[in-house]
Amino acid sequence: MTKVSILGAGSWGTALALVLADNQYDVCVWGHREELIEQINEHHENKDYLPGVKLPDNVRATTDLQGALADVKTIIVAVPTKAIREVLKEAVSFIKQKAIFVHVSKGIEPDTLLRISEMMEEEIPAELREDIVVLSGPSHAEEVGLRHPTTVTVSSKNIEAAQAIQDMFMNQHFRVYTNPDIIGVEIGGALKNIIALAAGITDGLGYGDNAKAALITRGLAEIARLGTKMGGNPLTFSGLTGIGDLIVTCTSVHSRNWRAGNMLGKGFKLEEVLKEMGMVVEGVRTTKAAYQLSQKYDVKMPITEALHKVLFDGKKVETAVESLMARVKTHEMEDLVNTFENQMK
Amino acid sequence: MTKVSILGAGSWGTALALVLADNQYDVCVWGHREELIEQINEHHENKDYLPGVKLPDNVRATTDLQGALADVKTIIVAVPTKAIREVLKEAVSFIKQKAIFVHVSKGIEPDTLLRISEMMEEEIPAELREDIVVLSGPSHAEEVGLRHPTTVTVSSKNIEAAQAIQDMFMNQHFRVYTNPDIIGVEIGGALKNIIALAAGITDGLGYGDNAKAALITRGLAEIARLGTKMGGNPLTFSGLTGIGDLIVTCTSVHSRNWRAGNMLGKGFKLEEVLKEMGMVVEGVRTTKAAYQLSQKYDVKMPITEALHKVLFDGKKVETAVESLMARVKTHEMEDLVNTFENQMK
Repeated sequence: MTKVSILGAGSWGTALALVLADNQYDVCVWGHREELIEQINEHHENKDYLPGVKLPDNVRATTDLQGALADVKTIIVAVPTKAIREVLKEAVSFIKQKAIFVHVSKGIEPDTLLRISEMMEEEIPAELREDIVVLSGPSHAEEVGLRHPTTVTVSSKNIEAAQAIQDMFMNQHFRVYTNPDIIGVEIGGALKNIIALAAGITDGLGYGDNAKAALITRGLAEIARLGTKMGGNPLTFSGLTGIGDLIVTCTSVHSRNWRAGNMLGKGFKLEEVLKEMGMVVEGVRTTKAAYQLSQKYDVKMPITEALHKVLFDGKKVETAVESLMARVKTHEMEDLVNTFENQMK
Repeated sequence: MTKVSILGAGSWGTALALVLADNQYDVCVWGHREELIEQINEHHENKDYLPGVKLPDNVRATTDLQGALADVKTIIVAVPTKAIREVLKEAVSFIKQKAIFVHVSKGIEPDTLLRISEMMEEEIPAELREDIVVLSGPSHAEEVGLRHPTTVTVSSKNIEAAQAIQDMFMNQHFRVYTNPDIIGVEIGGALKNIIALAAGITDGLGYGDNAKAALITRGLAEIARLGTKMGGNPLTFSGLTGIGDLIVTCTSVHSRNWRAGNMLGKGFKLEEVLKEMGMVVEGVRTTKAAYQLSQKYDVKMPITEALHKVLFDGKKVETAVESLMARVKTHEMEDLVNTFENQMK
């Protein structure tokens, strides 16, 4: 059996460990919390993050990063976006041969405005990386754990690396597509968390499904507008990592970003929400980064802008939604044509 | 007050009557069931189809088609798709001056394969119709009745007619966009019911949100492929009447088509489902028509085809879903590029 290592023992890392174990890989999951790692090895279950899912014997967990990284040619990076640089800084000293790095996280780094693969290029010396691949798409970890049908997309600057990762993960429950547009895949995955926050707000305000569908539709348009300006292919935003992931995140009460938005819609303050959630709400960081990107690339992003005012300028959610609804634009195609203009070239 | 007549006293006709009444029109709702009409006039509420919504005094109902059609320049056709020809045949004899006809229904006529505006062109003599306009988008009647924020699109061959209808309906809760692409607007609205049926099936099988998001994404791609071949603008399918309406219909348990699919997924036979529903399931008729269209225009529509086999050839739902999942295509962009190829011209 070929060894594959997964850095991060959260719900998504654990679900992907199950997929790879089903495909007969020798899967090593690294995490830093000793009691969690022991529990996984003892009970073959990650009760904290993926309860109820029995992990096969070819999944083992460890807190020993050096051991985890010995003799592997494929490294899956499944830690929270905020921790990626720190974990990679520590990891590189233990890597002795070139490997393919697969990231499965979503976000844009505030201030540097880098995509995750770009952050990874900064942290991993060129001589240690074969390629960097992103795996993204509409995929609740809980459902992957239950082996429910799931489809994702892998992308890389080098399409052959993406195909190698496609072959590793593909099975009868887990379908993997390739897409050469890594910019579009990473931007769609990151920015959907903003729209999920906004969808949570409209739900929290009690506005219903009509308003939410409008928000998702207009949200997709503004994501595509920015992503296309950044060099992504507009078609990517109509695919699994664009509208597909947006739908699953905005319509599920399991989504952390949706839940945070929901509390904001019900009148809680941002500090209260973050305290209550007790974990990272990626959409908050991403809203800041996307707002900066919209200014850098001079792209109109009304939803992102309205949310930025709510999160960081203390604007009332009702006022923000009202001004979104009151926008003067009434010709639907105007917006969409702007979105897709680069495609026409 | 300007008089506007709405043919059809169902939930959507009644909700639109509320919008027009709020905008200070003299609204006349025609229906053929006497006890329903009496009840609306007596209680200012349509308890059968839009319970709990108080209708203003400037909404009145009638069973007198001739009276309803006297002195109106705008006629909203809100009867079920199946009844449109019959109602219009009766109506035209009572119409004495040119009017704008607005339809708010969704479907494709099996065998003739006509869109609704095309059926209407056949039924309404040219000298009686100023223009035909379609109003479509993500809009549960119940939420419009509650004055929750809702956005829709109006379209017509003559954009000025669409703008006139936009002005009539637009208010602070109900936002109306225009789109000159009537083909794309009508095709998107009709075909979403197929995907809603299919989404109900995957939910009935217990497959979860990942599978449903993939289905909606792939469903949008096949709708756009067909609609573009038929002359629609591919951008329309990324808008409110495309992905927007698809989302609201596929993710709401209120949708009739979703509920029918859900029963199929749980193992009921089509006859049992139709009997249990006790009303028209538009997606069943549309699946037949769309399948015929896919053959006429030589467009690959794997979801429509699989559903056609389930509905009309007795194929088991599990087998149909499995063969959808097992499709060999693994390059996401291949499908999408085919979808949008006409746009590149």
